[in-house]
Amino acid sequence: MRKNFGAKPWTYPQPVFIIATYGEDGTPDAMNAAWGGISDDTQISMCLSAEHKTVANILARGAFTVSMADAAHVAECDYVGIESANKVPNKLAKAGFHTEKAEHVDAPIIVELPMSVECRLISYDEETCRLVGEIVNVSADEKILDENGKIDPVPPGGCHRDFQYFKRGEKI
Amino acid sequence: MRKNFGAKPWTYPQPVFIIATYGEDGTPDAMNAAWGGISDDTQISMCLSAEHKTVANILARGAFTVSMADAAHVAECDYVGIESANKVPNKLAKAGFHTEKAEHVDAPIIVELPMSVECRLISYDEETCRLVGEIVNVSADEKILDENGKIDPVPPGGCHRDFQYFKRGEKI
Repeated sequence: MRKNFGAKPWTYPQPVFIIATYGEDGTPDAMNAAWGGISDDTQISMCLSAEHKTVANILARGAFTVSMADAAHVAECDYVGIESANKVPNKLAKAGFHTEKAEHVDAPIIVELPMSVECRLISYDEETCRLVGEIVNVSADEKILDENGKIDPVPPGGCHRDFQYFKRGEKI
Repeated sequence: MRKNFGAKPWTYPQPVFIIATYGEDGTPDAMNAAWGGISDDTQISMCLSAEHKTVANILARGAFTVSMADAAHVAECDYVGIESANKVPNKLAKAGFHTEKAEHVDAPIIVELPMSVECRLISYDEETCRLVGEIVNVSADEKILDENGKIDPVPPGGCHRDFQYFKRGEKI
């Protein structure tokens, strides 16, 4: 037997993307987003409503980075999702994160998160809230690389949302 | 130290969406897709290239369902991703899956997968490969419901891709 729930935005796993940008005065900012993903070989798409400070920053600077939350930083990642930079301009620092400038785009990389995707803005549609970015580089901390220099997601422990936060489990 | 990998379509976790449709003659079909997700409160978007039989089916019938792979059916879900219905028209049945008609749309539900999202086609753009669907219902097998009748993702064990297939891990 199946139970019907009506029209709901429910799929899983949902990613825990941490989108980092610079504000007009250079203050690094970050938000937490679940509605998005890869949309082409070198393209990422996300649905972000226009009132986010992140969206204003991306439109002004034309760039952003996307990191993925890991289980070790779920509290910090959740905080940047709950708090708004429109109210707490230094919320990224308040979360305990540190940043350095990305090598390829005008946006910050969050040092504590081990992988980041550097993106240039392709388009933003205020009506549909769809933001499309060109991926220009992926970088990963050497602590998540295996002996061949490839990204090995097993040791560091990712996390994701299936309605709640979960750690990554065993490899199948 | 970070290592640069260039422009790659790498984010995690990536979902394991199983998209089910009816062919022109009513044969149920399914494919495995990772590039997509929720894009609004009652909307899902996916990037599917036009040569997929699934895309032809969706354009003809205006409907599809999206199920999420679980760890118990990862082999079946992987098979419908590797094989093409353009070559093996009954690949869904060959995978060992069974279907019943969805209540709200003209598309099949895969009985073995415990949650499915019933969608009507909103748009498909052949150039960008972006397919947008309106979610009209979510249904879940009672075996994944908790004592309050809500979906409880903990017991059944979802799965996802962080470069490889992983089981869902512990709740954080």
